[in-house]
Amino acid sequence: MPRLKLTLAYEGTRYAGWQMQARAGQPGASAPCTVQGTLESCLSRIVGRRVPVHGAGRTDAGVHAEGQVCHMDLPEDAGRIDWKQALNMLLPYDIRIIRAEWVAADFHARSSACKKRYAYSLWMDRDKALPRIAPFVWSVPRLELAAMLPALPLLTGRRDFASFQNSGTLRASTIRSLHSIELRPGLLGPLACPEDWPVATLFFEGDGFLKQMVRNLSGLLVWIAQEKIKAEGIPAILAAKDRRALPSPSAPAQGLSLLEVMYERP
Amino acid sequence: MPRLKLTLAYEGTRYAGWQMQARAGQPGASAPCTVQGTLESCLSRIVGRRVPVHGAGRTDAGVHAEGQVCHMDLPEDAGRIDWKQALNMLLPYDIRIIRAEWVAADFHARSSACKKRYAYSLWMDRDKALPRIAPFVWSVPRLELAAMLPALPLLTGRRDFASFQNSGTLRASTIRSLHSIELRPGLLGPLACPEDWPVATLFFEGDGFLKQMVRNLSGLLVWIAQEKIKAEGIPAILAAKDRRALPSPSAPAQGLSLLEVMYERP
Repeated sequence: MPRLKLTLAYEGTRYAGWQMQARAGQPGASAPCTVQGTLESCLSRIVGRRVPVHGAGRTDAGVHAEGQVCHMDLPEDAGRIDWKQALNMLLPYDIRIIRAEWVAADFHARSSACKKRYAYSLWMDRDKALPRIAPFVWSVPRLELAAMLPALPLLTGRRDFASFQNSGTLRASTIRSLHSIELRPGLLGPLACPEDWPVATLFFEGDGFLKQMVRNLSGLLVWIAQEKIKAEGIPAILAAKDRRALPSPSAPAQGLSLLEVMYERP
Repeated sequence: MPRLKLTLAYEGTRYAGWQMQARAGQPGASAPCTVQGTLESCLSRIVGRRVPVHGAGRTDAGVHAEGQVCHMDLPEDAGRIDWKQALNMLLPYDIRIIRAEWVAADFHARSSACKKRYAYSLWMDRDKALPRIAPFVWSVPRLELAAMLPALPLLTGRRDFASFQNSGTLRASTIRSLHSIELRPGLLGPLACPEDWPVATLFFEGDGFLKQMVRNLSGLLVWIAQEKIKAEGIPAILAAKDRRALPSPSAPAQGLSLLEVMYERP
């Protein structure tokens, strides 16, 4: 069966994340609306049966994506259809297919991925963010952004990030390579905002990310910029290999966006 | 009692417009969520009783605002409160107070207004708009924007706009001065988008607007840009003074935003 790779953007505000979580003990609870579920239901309207969709990774409830990737196997005659256009006709306004490509049968959205990029945006003013950007930023007044800078090299590199992993997913290894964390003024992505706006974005690039790792890293960096904790405390937090050693809370979902999933082969 | 003037921005997506409409014959229907109602409920939490809010004008369900204006009378001791900050703490993310000013007792948000500006944004591509801007544009592929230009002088000036008024509100006069209609590339307001994006915005400035007048004007201009009707047909549409003489449908709510309400005195 031909395998299709989709690259998609979504605003996560209305969704319970990418993937439906199994909810033990709640058999009667109605299924929350997920991005994967919405996409599968559009695919089934075209194909006439359920088509399982495999994502590059879960995004939490409320997290956005500029470049989430997924793949699916379609019927032999699927080549007749312009999938990008057909799906965009059916999908709601807050999910959009950016690219649709045929890939080899051994391509897998999750296991073939070699790098991912995330962005976390901060609104740094006592005044609330304007409604058009409020769903995409975390409002944290009075940040000393420069205090973050010495923390960045202490968090990048090949390290055991067990202290930055929320419970819930069992991983064989919690070692990951975090290639870079960059702090830049402004919003992420193609939309620009005026230079004097109190907005900054953290960009994370790595070979893989643990559950809520980016939100835990962002939460710690905000605490450092609020001068609640010093960058010198980071080695001890990492060495503890335990989420309870991390004093700062996870940054809220709405500031986070999955920017890009990278593959060796295009 | 001291009178407060508020300037506010909102994303209209989740709201049944600015003002709750009386719904005859539906006494049991639950009240839809409106911007005015949300603001009044925040005010009553601070003041301890209902505070009626008077808006500069209604915006329809789904219409946005960058600069809606309203006023209200507050208790004598209200000067002790930072109203902008207090309300922004209580309001949901999609409504934000931009300015709060004390005004004279004869200031009235609606009747003191001398000019208003609206913007209507168009996404001109077969591809869907990105999720971050989709709630703010009308997607209309294949527009010949240049065809709109000869229509603009035929619609501006002091005219009877009865053909551009939807039924529902009785007006003593349907004559209004539409000072200008401008067509510019890009989105409205402070957010910029890349220059090669297929986005354009119509800006309307006038001394007053009839019910759905901007959406009816935008709908006609889009029909002209789609070459479904010629600009030369405009004088006959105006002369008919009847909405049924206008062949094009109203442009949908989500592309519209109330940019600014202007007053003689600041």
